Amino acid sequence: MKQILLLILLASGITISAIAQAKDDRVKAEIRAVMEAQAAAWNRGDIEGYMQGYWKSEQMTFVSGDSVSRGWQAAFDRYRKRYDSRAKMGVLTFSDLEMNILSKDSATVLGSWALQRESDNPKGKFTLIFRKFKNGWKIVHDHTS
Amino acid sequence: MKQILLLILLASGITISAIAQAKDDRVKAEIRAVMEAQAAAWNRGDIEGYMQGYWKSEQMTFVSGDSVSRGWQAAFDRYRKRYDSRAKMGVLTFSDLEMNILSKDSATVLGSWALQRESDNPKGKFTLIFRKFKNGWKIVHDHTS
Repeated sequence: MKQILLLILLASGITISAIAQAKDDRVKAEIRAVMEAQAAAWNRGDIEGYMQGYWKSEQMTFVSGDSVSRGWQAAFDRYRKRYDSRAKMGVLTFSDLEMNILSKDSATVLGSWALQRESDNPKGKFTLIFRKFKNGWKIVHDHTS
Repeated sequence: MKQILLLILLASGITISAIAQAKDDRVKAEIRAVMEAQAAAWNRGDIEGYMQGYWKSEQMTFVSGDSVSRGWQAAFDRYRKRYDSRAKMGVLTFSDLEMNILSKDSATVLGSWALQRESDNPKGKFTLIFRKFKNGWKIVHDHTS
């Protein structure tokens, strides 16, 4: 009897852990899809499409080097000003993505970005904090260096 | 009768929201205490004490500029090598702390750091991801720029 109970407990444990793993994998796939859509938008010159990955809020925060800026609109305006030609936009790639799911509606992504351009190849790292909203996973905080 | 029910519901809502707020405030105070202990340790020349704020794991990640390093021990070794005198350590201050609680065991902190030294005053921003462990809140990821 004891052994059967143990077996049932063990099987339940494995099932629960498999379900949790499947859920984590699904979340990671969702977040990866957001970032792939961002890169695809960027690489067709669509900054507004790229910006869809960010939380459309005044509270969205963006840290770059020693400066902090706030708000979706301000980030969009800055991108449009800084990358006002396809040559400046170059080809964006994200790589080395490491995702950590913190809760059912929050996750972090550490990764590398690179721009391939005629004149240079800037690159760096980012830490993103994603939250899940009714309209999907969005970046609420971006620290790029 | 309807009005009494409404009043009870309203009162319960206010109570629940007040409890949640008090819990958030407590978590923020706990995280703030970890960071204050870090700064205090640094400012008495105690790098090992400062390191107590970090998750003691090989999986702890540290991003600075374009480089990612891993592991508590590696971070400790790097700090000891880079800041091998009180003059180099200077006086550390953290400021502009903005905390976001993501779940019962995860939170982020955006803030500014500054070192006051004889020869220079380096400063920058950080994004920290804290997780709650049995031994308290610890930084699992640090992106500093």
